[in-house]
Amino acid sequence: MTISPAVERLQELRQKPVYRNPYSAILTDLYQLTMMYGYYKSGRMNQRAVFDLFFRRNPFQNGFALAAGLEEVIMFLTGLQFQEEDIEYLRSLNLFDEDFLGELQRFRFRGTVYAVQEGTVVFPNIPLMRFEGRIFELQLVESACLSFINHQTLIATKAARMVQATRGELFNLSHESVEFGLRRAQNADAATFGSRASYIGGFVGTSNVYAGQNFGIPVVGTQAHSWIQSFPTELEAFRAYAATYPDRTTLLVDTYDTLKSGIPNAIQVGRELREKGYELRGIRLDSGDLAWLSKEARRMLDEAGFPNVKILASGDLNEYVVRDLMLQGARIDTWCFGTALITGDDCPALGGVYKLVAEEENGVMIPKIKVSENPDKITNPGYKRAVRLYLEDGKATADLIMLAEEQLDPSRPLTLFHPIHTYKRKTIRNFTVEELLVPILVNGEIVYQLPHVEQIRARAAEQLEAMPREIKRPINPHGYHVDLSEELWGLKQKLLKEARGGSIS
Amino acid sequence: MTISPAVERLQELRQKPVYRNPYSAILTDLYQLTMMYGYYKSGRMNQRAVFDLFFRRNPFQNGFALAAGLEEVIMFLTGLQFQEEDIEYLRSLNLFDEDFLGELQRFRFRGTVYAVQEGTVVFPNIPLMRFEGRIFELQLVESACLSFINHQTLIATKAARMVQATRGELFNLSHESVEFGLRRAQNADAATFGSRASYIGGFVGTSNVYAGQNFGIPVVGTQAHSWIQSFPTELEAFRAYAATYPDRTTLLVDTYDTLKSGIPNAIQVGRELREKGYELRGIRLDSGDLAWLSKEARRMLDEAGFPNVKILASGDLNEYVVRDLMLQGARIDTWCFGTALITGDDCPALGGVYKLVAEEENGVMIPKIKVSENPDKITNPGYKRAVRLYLEDGKATADLIMLAEEQLDPSRPLTLFHPIHTYKRKTIRNFTVEELLVPILVNGEIVYQLPHVEQIRARAAEQLEAMPREIKRPINPHGYHVDLSEELWGLKQKLLKEARGGSIS
Repeated sequence: MTISPAVERLQELRQKPVYRNPYSAILTDLYQLTMMYGYYKSGRMNQRAVFDLFFRRNPFQNGFALAAGLEEVIMFLTGLQFQEEDIEYLRSLNLFDEDFLGELQRFRFRGTVYAVQEGTVVFPNIPLMRFEGRIFELQLVESACLSFINHQTLIATKAARMVQATRGELFNLSHESVEFGLRRAQNADAATFGSRASYIGGFVGTSNVYAGQNFGIPVVGTQAHSWIQSFPTELEAFRAYAATYPDRTTLLVDTYDTLKSGIPNAIQVGRELREKGYELRGIRLDSGDLAWLSKEARRMLDEAGFPNVKILASGDLNEYVVRDLMLQGARIDTWCFGTALITGDDCPALGGVYKLVAEEENGVMIPKIKVSENPDKITNPGYKRAVRLYLEDGKATADLIMLAEEQLDPSRPLTLFHPIHTYKRKTIRNFTVEELLVPILVNGEIVYQLPHVEQIRARAAEQLEAMPREIKRPINPHGYHVDLSEELWGLKQKLLKEARGGSIS
Repeated sequence: MTISPAVERLQELRQKPVYRNPYSAILTDLYQLTMMYGYYKSGRMNQRAVFDLFFRRNPFQNGFALAAGLEEVIMFLTGLQFQEEDIEYLRSLNLFDEDFLGELQRFRFRGTVYAVQEGTVVFPNIPLMRFEGRIFELQLVESACLSFINHQTLIATKAARMVQATRGELFNLSHESVEFGLRRAQNADAATFGSRASYIGGFVGTSNVYAGQNFGIPVVGTQAHSWIQSFPTELEAFRAYAATYPDRTTLLVDTYDTLKSGIPNAIQVGRELREKGYELRGIRLDSGDLAWLSKEARRMLDEAGFPNVKILASGDLNEYVVRDLMLQGARIDTWCFGTALITGDDCPALGGVYKLVAEEENGVMIPKIKVSENPDKITNPGYKRAVRLYLEDGKATADLIMLAEEQLDPSRPLTLFHPIHTYKRKTIRNFTVEELLVPILVNGEIVYQLPHVEQIRARAAEQLEAMPREIKRPINPHGYHVDLSEELWGLKQKLLKEARGGSIS
């Protein structure tokens, strides 16, 4: 039997790693590998260095971000290994010699990593991760780690904004948000890790079954219009669904005419279910004027004796539309977010960066600074820690970035000052200290017990609770204090002066 | 020896499919599975149906889109299979009975699929894919297929816009664009399939080594600021790189001071390379005023005897910034796009949809329509084909969507009319016809020989060349004609009338 060229080509493609392995050691930018080769050739590959991963601006003009993506980074770092096919491919580029390729074959990540835990509220300039190790290995992992943290932190933050909009603090309501984004996600793992991040941000479920399987997130769903269309009439479609899931029927009511057909038919099926001892669970509105339709739907359902039937709404929702609908008195119980959530919408990337902050010279770790014409882009040098300071009421009041060896005495008053407008000062007393960076890997070995996504989600809720109200406003939030210790500030000024002065050659 | 809880938890996570398998049969929305169960319970699972995949609006207010993602869809459909762990997970949801789970275990995709080839210029309402098969199987695959096509088509289109901006038609220049987006991509395969899509859209290379390996795309790169910082001086860093890659050195010149330090040092290293018989290849600007700096850099390089050293620019570039820089006379040879390309920036999702257009009733395929208050959302019913009509000058003049059984006689004049404003008519003569949908899978068997990405890229270039100039403008493009045949238009009106009339119950 002969194999057709079409089948042969398909089989050939199926051998490609992309269709098998989402994490590859060469999921990196070429320049990382050419720099590694350069370090290797210059005899500097084992030079120890420290890199910080952080971002410079909150996404969505939000007042904070919600850290996520660490688990994915850990899976990546601890599984990192160049496969035979990777070495072969790199050989084909004619950029590397055989000794170097041998180094790569033996390569394992042996760095020490500290990180902010997932679900932590974070701010610009706080190191989300601190990597220490050979410059050789730290360079390799930059690109993928950034992608994972940038992506999941972005979506978790968007989710938190959306949940906040639906909970409508001012209205003191309690709503539910679910994620329906798979079909509009930027490919498979944007969808799946996006589901995870949404859950961390406070969503109650996802439509993505694969995400449900992997992360233990609740999975939810109703029907598509095609289900309704596939039956001779809407009523028959509703009845068939109710017969399949009598104890969990939510009906999509906008296929033909929401008020004249969809809701009356749903009420009819609700009555039939009740005769059999079941209760209709909900209806879903997917188009039209959601404010008007939800109010009418609520009235019709209540009048027909179904006050407990929930109203779900979907269709290009975002946090701004939700706030507006709530101001109009829309009667929506469950909000279904798709495109705007899973892509980040108005801000589809968190601009996280990964910067060299220290490097060993003659056995001593020397702090490094990256200068820039733009003051926001100047890095905080050195081997650092970051702490969150809480006042007696349990609320966070400021974060402090300091040198790792500095001590902090909570029993004495502490004066904080703005790192650029230094005349802005405040003194705090009787504070408690939370260390933000915790050990994850020590010389490549895991020392951190990865929490379940439920625990991460609970941490996010706690962290948000402890934040001052003003920084949580979705629009024009107040800026949270992220200050430098006097010692770190002094070091930064010193290095800046040196960089602008003599050391350029 | 005891295993630490941290290690144990890591090993447990490593068993999860997401860290092993990017394509799963349950990469789908839950409602697809509950609808499948409903069809199964209603005795309708083998009902044959037809679904069209299409979008309703061009992204970026562009005049066209560039189809991409088909290869990924094919890999998914032909590899689709429920694994033991998937069945187990679905069982745990308590939504399905054992007979149904048995059906899933035996499941293979056996549908017939036609599609527009990758690299084809496409427009709203053109079916990018037509799926025919059992409603059971067609429902399952909707979500993932949409994600793949939506993502890659979006990025290929963005890439085409960017390439067009850099080529500056009006200036008749020839520039190069490279993709540096990995670190800002929405996770690993948004990066990797995004690299592929960018290449289809006309980019010349990517920094993503994994994408290079998988798709045979050229990989490119320079150095990071950390390389420069890691050496005692900028000059030493440049020299070390030039020693490693004397025949392919491009130097990042903005770490300290572009004009006072970076370019003079690059020129110095250029001279040293020349003494050894090599030529410096390029410099990269990554910050500051790119118009001013590139002009100054060009002048300094030319005066020093390096007119062939290329100037690369990077740093939050998008098509609008590029056009503006070109109008300011910037001297940039190679444009490096990151965030704005790999995320889609101002439009991070293509709103592709997947709609039921026909279903078998008593052995006859019956066209179906989805009505909506919004005229743009009313679907084109029936089993259809789509053709592109070319005039004698080789330029495409219109696309026509028609019923599959309709004949078209290119030897006779053809009158086209606008599907909504029907008074807008034009008659064409002596045209040639390109069938847009080609057979891909027949009853689940592949009949299409998947092209290499180079061929797809060449097709995109040809297709763009054949398109009228006015529709290719990045801003305020002219709308391309996508018309319905008279027969299809008539069918649509008839079904609309029926749907708005009696058949709602």
